[in-house]
Amino acid sequence: MYTLFFSPNACSLASHIALVESGLPYEIRRVKFAENEQQSEAYLKINPKGRVPALVTDKGVLTESVAILAFIAQAAPEAKLAPLDDPFLFGKMQAFNAYIASTVHVAYAHWRRGYRWADNQASFDDMVAKAPKVFHASFQMIEDQFLDGPYVLGETYSVADPYLYLMTSWLANMKLDRTDFPKVSAHFERMKERPGVQRAEAEQAAASA
Amino acid sequence: MYTLFFSPNACSLASHIALVESGLPYEIRRVKFAENEQQSEAYLKINPKGRVPALVTDKGVLTESVAILAFIAQAAPEAKLAPLDDPFLFGKMQAFNAYIASTVHVAYAHWRRGYRWADNQASFDDMVAKAPKVFHASFQMIEDQFLDGPYVLGETYSVADPYLYLMTSWLANMKLDRTDFPKVSAHFERMKERPGVQRAEAEQAAASA
Repeated sequence: MYTLFFSPNACSLASHIALVESGLPYEIRRVKFAENEQQSEAYLKINPKGRVPALVTDKGVLTESVAILAFIAQAAPEAKLAPLDDPFLFGKMQAFNAYIASTVHVAYAHWRRGYRWADNQASFDDMVAKAPKVFHASFQMIEDQFLDGPYVLGETYSVADPYLYLMTSWLANMKLDRTDFPKVSAHFERMKERPGVQRAEAEQAAASA
Repeated sequence: MYTLFFSPNACSLASHIALVESGLPYEIRRVKFAENEQQSEAYLKINPKGRVPALVTDKGVLTESVAILAFIAQAAPEAKLAPLDDPFLFGKMQAFNAYIASTVHVAYAHWRRGYRWADNQASFDDMVAKAPKVFHASFQMIEDQFLDGPYVLGETYSVADPYLYLMTSWLANMKLDRTDFPKVSAHFERMKERPGVQRAEAEQAAASA
């Protein structure tokens, strides 16, 4: 049994979708950000970084979407969630996911969590003004360079797809229009049709009710 | 033959060390940041993100340290640069590397590249003042939680080690004292003794002369 610690619509949704599609046995546990539960003593014992996702396995805890997504794919090879027998294509998947984690998600974080990197309100305001442009530019990069279609790796579906899907869903939070990016937008619509995506979203909604 | 595009003492050093230790055939190509070569038309054809590292393989180009490091380990299994047969331990390695890429390196980037996320000089000054504290805190997290010793994964050497080594070397740039972190410091000294580390550093020095 795997236990995924998540917050609704946070980046942990990608790992949640991957778990559903893996066929592995799992349960989900909500971390209540509104109550700052991610910094509670109990949660910091699970993930000392105070973030989601965290995946509890029978061998220990894994953190970081890039690692959890690849782990789920490796733990359920029959679900074909990654090109496990092709190191180059696996590397392309990891490069895409690392770009999401270290550039795209980071660009987004400056919109609401500028306090991680600065102290003054004027700096936060500056970051808030710029973040939608930087986030938009990172999606332009994905649209132009890194989305072969229909999936991130072309014909090969992988855990890069739920990660892109989740990140695309955040465009609307910033009042950005995903139809600026036709390939990204078509990918998003395609993903919404997947039963695994619908089930993960329904489970998160039920856990948040 | 693999071609690694690097800048001296940038994060590409980790991939360079991994290449040396892999035994794979490689050459290195310097990207001259002082001449803004990373934004040149020729380089953007290799890596549209305008960053290093980029690894040219016979199947295409890989980017992002997290992906390149794992790829090198997978491409040379006999070099034992990753726990390839243990998905959980491989996941721990990827989680460590993803933390370096998306948190530790990002903390450092606010020290010199605040223009990525803000526009005003006052914001840059604010980030420059805070960056050493955030970078220091991320090393405290590594020291306390994520460095089992003697290597990142305990007794198992992996590509997480050159990545930590490179990042540790940046502490001095910020006038931070690595002996604040006894385990990180011992790891750094241990890594300096490795012939592969010495050879990569010598090759970078020669290519920069």
